[in-house]
Amino acid sequence: MRLTSRNACQTADQLDSLHDLRKEFRLADGMIYLDGNSLGAQPHAAMRKAQHVIENEWGNDLIKSWNTAGWFDLPSRLGNQLAPLIGADPNEVVVTDTTSINLFKAIAAALDIQARDPATAHKKTIITESSNFPTDIYMAEGITRWLDRGYHIQLIESPEDLATSINDDTALVMLTHVNYRSGYLHDMQYVTAQAHQHGAMCIWDLAHSAGAVPVELNKANADFAVGCCYKYLNGGPGAPAFIWVPHRHQAQFAHPLTGWWGHAAPFAMQTHFEATPGIRRALCGTQPIVSLAMIESGLDLFARTNMQTIRDKSLALTDLFIQRVEHVCASHQLELVTPRSHQHRGSHVSFKHEHAYAIIQALIARQVIGDYREPGIMRFGFTPLYTSFTDVWDAVEHLSDILDKQLYDKNIQRNVVT
Amino acid sequence: MRLTSRNACQTADQLDSLHDLRKEFRLADGMIYLDGNSLGAQPHAAMRKAQHVIENEWGNDLIKSWNTAGWFDLPSRLGNQLAPLIGADPNEVVVTDTTSINLFKAIAAALDIQARDPATAHKKTIITESSNFPTDIYMAEGITRWLDRGYHIQLIESPEDLATSINDDTALVMLTHVNYRSGYLHDMQYVTAQAHQHGAMCIWDLAHSAGAVPVELNKANADFAVGCCYKYLNGGPGAPAFIWVPHRHQAQFAHPLTGWWGHAAPFAMQTHFEATPGIRRALCGTQPIVSLAMIESGLDLFARTNMQTIRDKSLALTDLFIQRVEHVCASHQLELVTPRSHQHRGSHVSFKHEHAYAIIQALIARQVIGDYREPGIMRFGFTPLYTSFTDVWDAVEHLSDILDKQLYDKNIQRNVVT
Repeated sequence: MRLTSRNACQTADQLDSLHDLRKEFRLADGMIYLDGNSLGAQPHAAMRKAQHVIENEWGNDLIKSWNTAGWFDLPSRLGNQLAPLIGADPNEVVVTDTTSINLFKAIAAALDIQARDPATAHKKTIITESSNFPTDIYMAEGITRWLDRGYHIQLIESPEDLATSINDDTALVMLTHVNYRSGYLHDMQYVTAQAHQHGAMCIWDLAHSAGAVPVELNKANADFAVGCCYKYLNGGPGAPAFIWVPHRHQAQFAHPLTGWWGHAAPFAMQTHFEATPGIRRALCGTQPIVSLAMIESGLDLFARTNMQTIRDKSLALTDLFIQRVEHVCASHQLELVTPRSHQHRGSHVSFKHEHAYAIIQALIARQVIGDYREPGIMRFGFTPLYTSFTDVWDAVEHLSDILDKQLYDKNIQRNVVT
Repeated sequence: MRLTSRNACQTADQLDSLHDLRKEFRLADGMIYLDGNSLGAQPHAAMRKAQHVIENEWGNDLIKSWNTAGWFDLPSRLGNQLAPLIGADPNEVVVTDTTSINLFKAIAAALDIQARDPATAHKKTIITESSNFPTDIYMAEGITRWLDRGYHIQLIESPEDLATSINDDTALVMLTHVNYRSGYLHDMQYVTAQAHQHGAMCIWDLAHSAGAVPVELNKANADFAVGCCYKYLNGGPGAPAFIWVPHRHQAQFAHPLTGWWGHAAPFAMQTHFEATPGIRRALCGTQPIVSLAMIESGLDLFARTNMQTIRDKSLALTDLFIQRVEHVCASHQLELVTPRSHQHRGSHVSFKHEHAYAIIQALIARQVIGDYREPGIMRFGFTPLYTSFTDVWDAVEHLSDILDKQLYDKNIQRNVVT
């Protein structure tokens, strides 16, 4: 269905099976929030959850809550709740630490597995994209520099060059499933198969795909995955991240961050580390309970729909956005950075423009919230749980008005955080 | 002043300059909370802070709050607020991640500094106590196993043997300032000097001393320190931890957890890691903002007193507890594990007993909250900000009643979490 008027968008919203879920979020009147790919909006339930944890669990029950409120089990319980959204089985996911730290564990474990196998011990290259989210590259740099065993990071410029770059020296392919900047969606099953064909392992960062696009980790036979809970999962600012280790790799999953939460007997107070069996060996230290607990309020909402419904609406929203921008802003040198092909499009859309930063500031001043990414990219995220077709229509109207009338300050100073 | 009656304790409470601070905490009527060394009680202000962050910063302002609410600067701002409590200078502390992960960074950095200096490159031993909190030992095991450069962990059985164990092969001495089990308080200045005399570096874990005893990191010329914000600092369950790197070591502070928050230009999206100058190079990934922000409410209360006043009351409380237990429970084979000497006593007191676990459960059933630690230890924490002399008196009355009448279940099953 091609939506060619604001009225048609309003009708589409009425027909949208996800329409009711929007009411579950705190969204200011008049704001069009297109940045859920950076920080997800707040489920109303998150405040009630935090108040309960602070008042009852911490305030009244204090130390007892480690047992009675299940704080110690929270990383596993939330992991199991999240698992179906990413095609993982029960007891394969924990919610803990940060995406960067979880990636460190996964890279370390993958290199260790490769190094222990005589068939792969010679492999020294880690392949990733030069446009991968920088912290992913930095974490790989960190561990390879410290291991000091000749590992080398190969940065691929274009996703099309990925498959042909994998060769016999490739130890590890490490990608963000949906590129944070371009919104390019990798074919997880194909890339993983290419990696395996050359004896390499494959780690996926799901920061921009968990809760946004269908993910089938086990079906793709992926090796490890990490991801973030504060974007499309709406877990709250800086909410702890997740790590997925499939059952087939758990027994050999070893990493250097061997803290007491990953110990086989954490309260026996032993003097030597012995990894617990199963997914909890991916844990390290004590977790921030209030921030962790709020993640449940975000995950609960996914029980009222499914990832295919979310995907269908996501593509309809991004299709509409691209069509409208290209139609009403045709004269303004906007370059679409995001793939047109549904097969390779995530849930955000990026356009390049000489004055991208200034234009984003002008949009924000009108309560249309997108964000800016270096170099010269305007990024707009579409969250099917709360973004409406009318939001998209109105956002593009604002954008075209700003562009047509040059209502942005070309000399604005950049002040970019996040 | 020796307190020999409940009346005298009540009078001492009235005279106590910290008495008013107790009102700032949520403490259930009738509960005697002696476990602030495990999870600090809740400042009333923490709920207001969380509500503000959730409702206004996340809920209303969403992504803008990274700038407008100062989320990105929070680790440094809280670090600077915490610094005076541990004898640190401004811009030497950040609040981030967990104690285990921060210790990993500190150990990695110390071993790196030692390995780069020809005078110390041969050193291969890390000295710690066998009774150190297990995760500290495990993190050292994790990094040494992965570096695979011949490092060896030497576990000391008694604090008296520490100084004589340090020798020319010692690369690193790593201790918890106040032992989590015995409450033994190490002489930071003396031990650090002994380590330096042998060319070793010295890392201190302040989990049981920050906010509990005066700490003078710079005066002691310590090398690195880490610690936790959810015990005596009352930051909330699993609140992010802190790491101290003195100015003299910051330029050479390098660790493998090189995430984007530690980058010199985190938003320039570069493809290579370059550590930021200063303390923020100890950061790694995005932090759990709600749990992080609540720490401020705990720290704020310390501005109304000083560490010497806290120390004086702490010693008076632990003196009273030891005296009363030894007086009224004299016939019950309780063995004091904590040093009698003020010089070596932290802010908790531990007694050994054959039925320690069962006795602690009986106390908890009466709302006297202490905790159990393997092997056979009852542990009682005294938090001068909210523990009263009358609390101490009453707790010992309960203990003696339970012991005198054997009101505990010797066959109870152990179910120990935390």
